[in-house]
Amino acid sequence: MQAGDGFTLVVIGVGLIGGSFALDLRRAGRVSKVIGVGRSPENLQRAIQLKVIDEADTLESAVSRADLVLIATPVGQMEAIMRRINACLPPHALVTDAGSTKVDVCALYHRCLPDHLDRCVPGHPIAGSDLSGAAAARFALFEQRKVVLTPLQETASGSVERIRSLWQSTGAQVVEMSAREHDDVFATVSHLPHLLAFAYMNHVLNRPHADRCLQLAASGFRDFTRIAGSHPEMWRDIAMGNREALLDELQLFRDELDLVIRQLGGQDGQAMRDGFARASEVRAKWRL
Amino acid sequence: MQAGDGFTLVVIGVGLIGGSFALDLRRAGRVSKVIGVGRSPENLQRAIQLKVIDEADTLESAVSRADLVLIATPVGQMEAIMRRINACLPPHALVTDAGSTKVDVCALYHRCLPDHLDRCVPGHPIAGSDLSGAAAARFALFEQRKVVLTPLQETASGSVERIRSLWQSTGAQVVEMSAREHDDVFATVSHLPHLLAFAYMNHVLNRPHADRCLQLAASGFRDFTRIAGSHPEMWRDIAMGNREALLDELQLFRDELDLVIRQLGGQDGQAMRDGFARASEVRAKWRL
Repeated sequence: MQAGDGFTLVVIGVGLIGGSFALDLRRAGRVSKVIGVGRSPENLQRAIQLKVIDEADTLESAVSRADLVLIATPVGQMEAIMRRINACLPPHALVTDAGSTKVDVCALYHRCLPDHLDRCVPGHPIAGSDLSGAAAARFALFEQRKVVLTPLQETASGSVERIRSLWQSTGAQVVEMSAREHDDVFATVSHLPHLLAFAYMNHVLNRPHADRCLQLAASGFRDFTRIAGSHPEMWRDIAMGNREALLDELQLFRDELDLVIRQLGGQDGQAMRDGFARASEVRAKWRL
Repeated sequence: MQAGDGFTLVVIGVGLIGGSFALDLRRAGRVSKVIGVGRSPENLQRAIQLKVIDEADTLESAVSRADLVLIATPVGQMEAIMRRINACLPPHALVTDAGSTKVDVCALYHRCLPDHLDRCVPGHPIAGSDLSGAAAARFALFEQRKVVLTPLQETASGSVERIRSLWQSTGAQVVEMSAREHDDVFATVSHLPHLLAFAYMNHVLNRPHADRCLQLAASGFRDFTRIAGSHPEMWRDIAMGNREALLDELQLFRDELDLVIRQLGGQDGQAMRDGFARASEVRAKWRL
């Protein structure tokens, strides 16, 4: 079925990502009906009020009417969802997801949807935020953002192209890579900084002068800790889902930290300056 | 002398902080002449073009005409500057600074300006940025920002009040505390995150997939690493100037990191979730 008239999108997990995807696809005329599925009736009600979805339904009833299913829940909920989907998915329907880890999610597709793999397209829109819930959904969230697709060996190229085209109509730039490469890169650029930001906030809270600190903290603190406001359950799932790569990252970062401690302890101002200069030069040139 | 007509401000180090202070004080009618002193003739020329300063001069000639001297250089340059100031400072002139560390700068006042201490008011405007140079100066940089003053035992209360009043006319909120408390608090909320951000950037650059990482990094990375674009020399000086407090912070943060490594290594998802939730709850409520 061609996306467009009569095309039904089922969003499981109507939050920032799922909701924004629905808003954009409808505005682009690529879907005519959006059905939301979720654990919180209040959130689904809010999503209907905000015209993010047309209706809420149970998982089984919604999926049985789907042309495309987007699973946009924390990764820890995906196994149970995929098992339930398997029984009611129409043969022609595409399935994709927005999970932040891909090796583990690809394994779930194999385990839970073995007869449907040619229409499964694992994905990861790179548009996270510390915000969550349907109220966080907005138009053009994915504009000029990247969306990574990590097709399974079994995924039909036509399925990849259809999902690519849908993401492109949200303004996103689609990048294809292996699930392994995805997880290694995001362990470095996303999962590690999130764990460092959480750990840093807890470090501050453990200090006897924590209240004074929070009073006097300024814009550097604000930006450095923004991602520490992220969803705890989602980030536990990501950390557990990409555990080995992330443990490597943590160990290597710890080595880098020990180097700084040795430089400062040894009053090696030159080595510190050189390290700061290398970081600063690259960061100053980098643009999102 | 009353600030206002005929009041001459000398800014040593015409960058983001010194330049913005000058812009605001002149707009508020608190100074009638601003003389800039600095190492880079190009930067001073730019400052004149941008009307941040009225004229550039040598240190000695400028200071001999000053009613107020603001030392807004990296802390590492302050000792040499204060020694040179001592010989030419008019007896009535106030001296303040914008150094990011205060215990070491207070010691410099004692060592270099022993006959002038009643008119010395160590300070720290909390409005840092990854930007530097005269071109970064702007109006209202300090609006609703905090400025910490850490008066010496010898500082006259009238001197503190005059500096407080000048900062207030930039829109800043002035907070007084001891130099020791200042350095402990800022080790936690500013110096540690800067060192972590520099270390994290260097960690990324050391990875074999660094280029791919920089291509795919998104808004979380952008905000987390913004302060890694900061001035290397200034941050070496800050780290060295607040070395002991910062070493404590680094060691305690390392313990927090080790805790996360143990939780992830031991697959203790519950403990990780609880740690993330504690951090997230406080961060989500915090407002600058």
